[in-house]
Amino acid sequence: MLMSTYSYDQLYKFTHDVLLKIGCPEVHAQIGAEVLVSADLRGVDSHGVARLSGYIRLWEKGRINPNPNIRIIHESPSTAVVNGDSGLGLVVAPYAMNVAIEKATKAGTGWVSVKNSNHYGIAGYHAMMALDHDMIGLSFTNASPLVSPTFSKERLLGTNPIAVAIPANEEPPFVADMATTTAANGKLEILQRKGMETPTGWVQDKQGKPTTSANGVKEGGALLPLGGDREHGSHKGYALGAVVDIFSAVLSGANYGPWVPPFVAFLDPDPNPVGEGIGHFFGAMRVDAFRPADEFKSHMDNWIRRFRSAETTEGNEKVLIPGDPERELEEVRRKEGIPLLKPVIDDLTDLGKKLGIDF
Amino acid sequence: MLMSTYSYDQLYKFTHDVLLKIGCPEVHAQIGAEVLVSADLRGVDSHGVARLSGYIRLWEKGRINPNPNIRIIHESPSTAVVNGDSGLGLVVAPYAMNVAIEKATKAGTGWVSVKNSNHYGIAGYHAMMALDHDMIGLSFTNASPLVSPTFSKERLLGTNPIAVAIPANEEPPFVADMATTTAANGKLEILQRKGMETPTGWVQDKQGKPTTSANGVKEGGALLPLGGDREHGSHKGYALGAVVDIFSAVLSGANYGPWVPPFVAFLDPDPNPVGEGIGHFFGAMRVDAFRPADEFKSHMDNWIRRFRSAETTEGNEKVLIPGDPERELEEVRRKEGIPLLKPVIDDLTDLGKKLGIDF
Repeated sequence: MLMSTYSYDQLYKFTHDVLLKIGCPEVHAQIGAEVLVSADLRGVDSHGVARLSGYIRLWEKGRINPNPNIRIIHESPSTAVVNGDSGLGLVVAPYAMNVAIEKATKAGTGWVSVKNSNHYGIAGYHAMMALDHDMIGLSFTNASPLVSPTFSKERLLGTNPIAVAIPANEEPPFVADMATTTAANGKLEILQRKGMETPTGWVQDKQGKPTTSANGVKEGGALLPLGGDREHGSHKGYALGAVVDIFSAVLSGANYGPWVPPFVAFLDPDPNPVGEGIGHFFGAMRVDAFRPADEFKSHMDNWIRRFRSAETTEGNEKVLIPGDPERELEEVRRKEGIPLLKPVIDDLTDLGKKLGIDF
Repeated sequence: MLMSTYSYDQLYKFTHDVLLKIGCPEVHAQIGAEVLVSADLRGVDSHGVARLSGYIRLWEKGRINPNPNIRIIHESPSTAVVNGDSGLGLVVAPYAMNVAIEKATKAGTGWVSVKNSNHYGIAGYHAMMALDHDMIGLSFTNASPLVSPTFSKERLLGTNPIAVAIPANEEPPFVADMATTTAANGKLEILQRKGMETPTGWVQDKQGKPTTSANGVKEGGALLPLGGDREHGSHKGYALGAVVDIFSAVLSGANYGPWVPPFVAFLDPDPNPVGEGIGHFFGAMRVDAFRPADEFKSHMDNWIRRFRSAETTEGNEKVLIPGDPERELEEVRRKEGIPLLKPVIDDLTDLGKKLGIDF
């Protein structure tokens, strides 16, 4: 498929200008662009600039407030609830993560649940904000219902990711960032474009039967929780997705489960919501609230080196540390640019024309 | 296979008397017995009285201190590190969870990492201690290395469970309690006894190749992280097990990864440990540090009812809420007793004879 390559700066500037154009304050346009394009840098292409026109369609529908009054509405020494005021999740999430970091500075840890937000880009970005402070960062979010719990024909959960970032000393940090489904929706889209089937355990069809059709979700089926089926532990993936949903939305007062508003603007949110917007959950733990940071980080180096140097199974070069593939790709893409597929380029070109911004 | 049924009180009393006999203080014998037998009640038979003689063998080797000085060695408003002084994990864990609950009472949340401990029974017991306080409870532990990360031939992680307990109002609580592997070791033992094969994705053999032999782990192979293989998301199960290991042991100063001391007394711990004993991690979050507890709990009722009443896939009666099967079994076993297999009965009878206690 045709593609061209763009620099980080090109994509950042375009995104920034688009966000300014719809009425975001300068500082929001900056952080929003940084979060969005960080996904493209790290190879999570489904959560980067390919989503930008989707955000703008939500703004056109009045579902995204470009100039929100993001605020703390409840707090304790180590917790807070943040109301995102229908803002871009790309902007609400870093605000809330900063609250978690401030709480941790004083109380050892900080935990922030967020309501009235929107899609927040890649989970890992927000978790990684903790690293510079010698803190462990956590980031969860709920999302549009596309996932069926074990034994359910209905879609009741989102792909509800979990991200955990842990600092090391000489080694790069440990950064896990994963959907609680067997495979993320972005991987299905790649297989659809190639006309390929999925492995087993990724998708069920509209009748709730296992399928290997990459179009299974589009055709009314569902993504499956990590594990795929009961025999392979899907009840565990379901439980993890449920915990993400509850921490993100039942703690904060956002919509949960099947009530989470759909990301696509052509579907309307449930007319009888159980909360406000979508929900996120963030955590920050000061390492030295447990033991001296240098001690912790040198043991992390040891942990990482031991795992990375483990004897491998046949045909595999090394055991990876969570975050390795994304970091390696980021190094390449910062140098060589970010490849975009033609449909994404066309979409951004159209968006630019509509808003009077060159792409 | 032959079995007989015992009442909770019988198993509790025997365990209590055994623990007293090896030198545990009365209060430790009580809590230790309660934690251990709670596993049998909830149907996690691999973690109940079937383990008792294993604990005693560790005591005989001097690896379990029956009268430990369990203490906080570092703290901040919302965190603590506990040194278990080589005590029974069954006793150290409730101590540490109580510290987390006390911290949460004051600071909103409490997070406790534990070193120098031993096997702590079922993860869910400790997480559920938070429920009576209108708190969410979390409980993690690392464990003897039996699990190979994705692409690894070596065993580097334990089955490293995650338990999360969340209170509701009229509905029973949400209680997830799961190994971060596709299947727990106890399930392999059941298949071994029946002479059956495992499903795919549970085990790899000594060469690191997929196998369906229920003896695969015994014969030098390994359990696989949730997901089973890369294509089915095993890198996610690996990342979850790694997070449990790091929070439990790198934060506290316990042994981590392949250095975790083996549970079986006939294998010696690594002569060059990287920490002390095994590690746990506990969390308690006061619900009303986020929103009024009544509001939260009535939304949990709504969450639980919506999921439980979802339309099911063919052949399945209902969508389960995490904790449903264990709670239902506990009700049955409290009334009808706890069935034990003949090898377990023989083992406990021998243990009783050795210590002069009737089983």
